[in-house]
Amino acid sequence: MADRFLRRAHASEIVRKLCTKAIFEQGLITNGDRILIAASGGKDSSVMAWALSSLKNSLKTGYKLAALHISTDFCACCKKSVLSEKLESWGISFTDLFVPVTGRLKPGKKMNCYWCSTQRRTELIKYAVENGFNKIALGHHLDDIIETFFMNLCAKGELSAMPIKLVYRKFPVTLIRPLAYLEETQIIACAEEQDILKAACTCSYGAHSKRLDIRKKIAELTNSSGAVKRRILRAALMQSDTKGLEKE
Amino acid sequence: MADRFLRRAHASEIVRKLCTKAIFEQGLITNGDRILIAASGGKDSSVMAWALSSLKNSLKTGYKLAALHISTDFCACCKKSVLSEKLESWGISFTDLFVPVTGRLKPGKKMNCYWCSTQRRTELIKYAVENGFNKIALGHHLDDIIETFFMNLCAKGELSAMPIKLVYRKFPVTLIRPLAYLEETQIIACAEEQDILKAACTCSYGAHSKRLDIRKKIAELTNSSGAVKRRILRAALMQSDTKGLEKE
Repeated sequence: MADRFLRRAHASEIVRKLCTKAIFEQGLITNGDRILIAASGGKDSSVMAWALSSLKNSLKTGYKLAALHISTDFCACCKKSVLSEKLESWGISFTDLFVPVTGRLKPGKKMNCYWCSTQRRTELIKYAVENGFNKIALGHHLDDIIETFFMNLCAKGELSAMPIKLVYRKFPVTLIRPLAYLEETQIIACAEEQDILKAACTCSYGAHSKRLDIRKKIAELTNSSGAVKRRILRAALMQSDTKGLEKE
Repeated sequence: MADRFLRRAHASEIVRKLCTKAIFEQGLITNGDRILIAASGGKDSSVMAWALSSLKNSLKTGYKLAALHISTDFCACCKKSVLSEKLESWGISFTDLFVPVTGRLKPGKKMNCYWCSTQRRTELIKYAVENGFNKIALGHHLDDIIETFFMNLCAKGELSAMPIKLVYRKFPVTLIRPLAYLEETQIIACAEEQDILKAACTCSYGAHSKRLDIRKKIAELTNSSGAVKRRILRAALMQSDTKGLEKE
């Protein structure tokens, strides 16, 4: 119990530290950046928004933050008013954009995660470019990155990972993933501490079995060790260093 | 039972097929090669010796085979006379070389797998060079290669795999691994079929827990699917294509 209390008490500080480490090591933020936060309403992007806002003073790098939430005709569970209140309390302006993800499906095609994320990504980039943002911050964490690495490895026979920083060739924007060094458990602990968790929503479609299955297997492979997971991240990133520009 | 019978009845043919595939796809053997088989006395190198001998006519590539067994002061379990009889029945000459692996340990140093394999590899290369062999064939299979890949990934944070073909820079010899496409179960089935298994010996030190542990985890990760394991091999080999020359 004491351990759990200590862990939780330090959760926000751990998030701030590992976010800062990723930002410096990977060169994610530079002076004058205008960063658009992709705010899904979930715990990850909400913790990221809190962290980027909270780090503004300590980083001594001047940057501006705004958040874009994409609403769809597919998932209406998001507690938008709570989300916008939270974001605004951290000094982050909130915009809600409606995208008819299901309505855009071609006849006979079924809804799937790939279609939804591609639609949302396109709109996110379009909005960023049109509104003068040069960075888009996504809330993927260490476990997300490793899961995708293993799914690509086992299903496609490819060594490829989501890069922590992706400079688009076609668009004047760069994707960044400031939570890349953080495990999901650390993010959940921080979300509890910052009273974010109960406001967070999760797409029920996202709980698909393939990702849950690989998550369980990775836990076994790594004994859920953060050190092992960070080693795998390091190896996976060596790949995305050379391939990142070509992917996504 | 019928399935098991069928599988076993075809085991030798599967080994011949997948060996041939590896040889052609990876360019392992060319006309005039003098191949030294590293014959440990175990099931893997024995099956490899049988396969390379058995393929001599069908491959229509002229190559010579000889086997070198390295005896040590460490492990004396090998049924050498059975091994030499088997090899000679396949038309492969047999040489036994004694290397005092334990005797070479520096004072205070303990025996370990890395030391033993380095000593044996050095002697193998030396013997090959001195006796005019241009290839050394090692009996590592698909599961060995994937296990090493995951051990390097989890323990070192490195993407590196044993290459199927390794051209040494320092020595005029090339390492080849003709069993690289074969799963261990397929090799065991062939060893049973060819009456090799009961003659095979295994170093008891080799059953160390780290490799057994990763083997179990890989079985879970891949659902013991040969297709998934071959996809992982493909990805791992993309790494060794560029790094193989620097490693081993």
